[in-house]
This record gives sequence, structure tokens and C-alpha cells, in this order.
Amino acid sequence: MKILSLDTTEQACSAALLLDDELVERFEIAPRQHSRLLLPMVESLLAEAGLALAQLDALAFARGPGSFTGVRIATAVVQGLALGVDLPVAPVSSLLALAQGAARESGARQVLALLDARMQEVYALACVRGEDGLMQPQGAETVGPPAAVSLPGGGDWVLAGSGVATYGEVLAHLGGTRLPEWQVHAADVARLAVALVRRGETVAAEAALPVYLRDQVAQKMTPLN
Amino acid sequence: MKILSLDTTEQACSAALLLDDELVERFEIAPRQHSRLLLPMVESLLAEAGLALAQLDALAFARGPGSFTGVRIATAVVQGLALGVDLPVAPVSSLLALAQGAARESGARQVLALLDARMQEVYALACVRGEDGLMQPQGAETVGPPAAVSLPGGGDWVLAGSGVATYGEVLAHLGGTRLPEWQVHAADVARLAVALVRRGETVAAEAALPVYLRDQVAQKMTPLN
Repeated sequence: MKILSLDTTEQACSAALLLDDELVERFEIAPRQHSRLLLPMVESLLAEAGLALAQLDALAFARGPGSFTGVRIATAVVQGLALGVDLPVAPVSSLLALAQGAARESGARQVLALLDARMQEVYALACVRGEDGLMQPQGAETVGPPAAVSLPGGGDWVLAGSGVATYGEVLAHLGGTRLPEWQVHAADVARLAVALVRRGETVAAEAALPVYLRDQVAQKMTPLN
Repeated sequence: MKILSLDTTEQACSAALLLDDELVERFEIAPRQHSRLLLPMVESLLAEAGLALAQLDALAFARGPGSFTGVRIATAVVQGLALGVDLPVAPVSSLLALAQGAARESGARQVLALLDARMQEVYALACVRGEDGLMQPQGAETVGPPAAVSLPGGGDWVLAGSGVATYGEVLAHLGGTRLPEWQVHAADVARLAVALVRRGETVAAEAALPVYLRDQVAQKMTPLN
């Protein structure tokens, strides 16, 4: 299976190329530089592997939730690529990808992924590692005040992501080990995408869309700019 | 010459297909819906013309200045498309495209294009129609307070764009006919792109980048989200 994956959920920008058991990633923390960095990352991954886009099986991207602009950049690039070379697209939850990487980083079996959603809120998803090594969502992705976040079960939890960095004190009620600096990585997007591609849970270019969770905010905020 | 062009500079979203003397456009005012609308527009234009992307000569996009998120969406889609099908890209000034359309709409020979740049500022470019019917920039694109905008010469001017809509009163010193509701159109991006493609002034996918004019603002603003 050959999958190219992209992530621009927050301030990090990354691209990864999964070739069966090999996985190579380009990753950079680069606020506001995603438009400039993402495509060269893709090109260098393909060049290094000696592959053309059309030889891939699928594309994958972190479809949100996350930064409004950020999520839209990976979405738009993947839309263009998918239309250009007619490849299916696997949309991967940015929270699930965050949890997948945090589990890999920490060895944890249970991860609460928390992304800073601004406006005193967090995006949250509790995940538990399945037998295949992939994180499984426990319940739905949510957006709300950090004080309202709860864990779906006992045992040891790792809390990971920018939500932990911003609201660490408010989240004290949850306990758990903390990985506040952990970021979404395109490599984890690719790992999770493999299962989606195998199950046929891919979409066409024009249906590769961002997930924002918070539509009422979208309406309150001034459009664009 | 076959050119596909995109614009998401502000709240409008449009795509156009130029086939020699024919020009078809899809256009919609749709704040925050660009990610959902742009690709279906592209697909329907191509389907209607019975063309594949690879049969085009070039892609074009409005490269800014404009809304931070908006400009990045057209940029990212065009990057993906261009990399996918290996087409050259013509980056067109959104201000010049605005002026081109406003001249077409009003019959004016001289247009001052003004886009709302937020923070009590406007992006501005004065343009005069050349013998080939295309608008030519008179001086550089600028960003600054609307009260500081001046016209480069006498005669009749049309002032067009969201900058006029927002700062109409502050711009009273300029006189001129007003087209405050005029938007950038992908059709005008395509018209201007033809000349760029003929002169070989195109770039590769990874060099199709947004122009924001205001780097110091980019640093003051909180990154992304």
C-alpha cells in the first residue's frame, strides 16, 4: 500500500509517504508557512522514493478539527492532488492522529487528545489502542470548555496536544501523564489511513472536506481574513 | 490557449475555464464555503468542456493580496492540481484582476482597485487599460490607511472593491465613480493569465505562492486559527 499523507492542523506542517512497511516523514513547526512548505515536502518525498503521484494507492489528510486556516490548507492541497491524479482520499481525524502519535511516543494505551480550539475551548477525543496497534475513538469528538472534559474510563491516561499546553491547570481534574507539546504528524495520519483505505472508507477529491466541529462559531466569527 | 483559473481572494469563490475565445465561469458569494465549493466548480467546468486537466496549457490563480485564509485556499488547490498534472501556474494579482473586471463592468479606462485589508487599512493598486484591453498596474501594490491612498494621475477613475465598501467616506478625497460591491472574478484572472503564459511568466507548483503584502502584520497576528 502506497499512501501520501498531509497535516497542517496547527502550527506544524508535515507530509509523509507510507510504502508498505516503510514510512518517511517531513515535519516542521512553521506557523503561517504551510503554503510555502507543504508542496516541497511532498515533492521531496516522492523524488526520494522515485515515485510519481499516480503510482500511489491513496492520499490522506488530517481533516480537522484544528486551526481554521491550517486545516483548509491540507484540505485544498489534497483536493487538488486527488483531482489531478484521480486518487481516492482518506480523511483522518486530527485528534485521532494526535492520539496515535502520542501513544507511539509514550507507549500509552489510552490517550486523551486535546487541541486548543480558542475561545476558552478545546477539541477533545478519548482514544484506546486496539489490537491492531491503531487508536480507536471512545465516543465522539467534542468541542467545549476544558473544565467540562471527562475521561470515559479508568486506568492510566496520557493527555496530549495543544489543549494541554494551553489549559493544563484547568485540566488538573483529569490527572494523567502530560504530553503538552505533542503535535499531529502526517506519519500517524498515514498509519490510520491504511485501515480506511483497506475498508474502502475513502472519498473522491471534491468530498475531501474539513471538519470543524463548531458551526455556531463559524457563524459568529467574521468571514475569512 | 486553455487555462483554468481560481479565485478565493475574499468572500466570493469562483473558477473559470478559458478556451481560446471562450470563457466560462462559476461564481458564488459564499463566506467560509470555499473548501466545499471550489473543486466542484472546477469539475463541472471541465466536464462541460469535455476536457481533462492534463489537456490544459496552464493553471492560474489570484495570488493575493486578500483574506489570509481565502488566498491560501486557491493557492493550495492550484499547487495540488499543478503538481498532480504537471502544469505551469500563472500567479495573477487579485487587485489587477479586480481592476480588470471593474473596467469590463463599467467601461472605465482607469480603475483604482481597493480591497479591505482589515486593521483600518486597504490594499490598493491603480490600473490603466492598455491597448490590448488588459489593465496595467501604475506603480506598486500598497497596503495602508485609506486616507493615504492617492491617484497616480488625472482623468476619470472608477474605485472598485471591498475597500470602497468599507471605507467609502474616508476615500471621499479621491472622488471617482464607485463600484463598492465589485469582486475579483476567476474569469478576469484567466484573461490576465493568458498574457503571463504567452510571456512565459509562469511558475512550477511549489512556487505558486500567496502574496500578502503585509509581513509585519503576519508577525503581529497570532499564528493560524
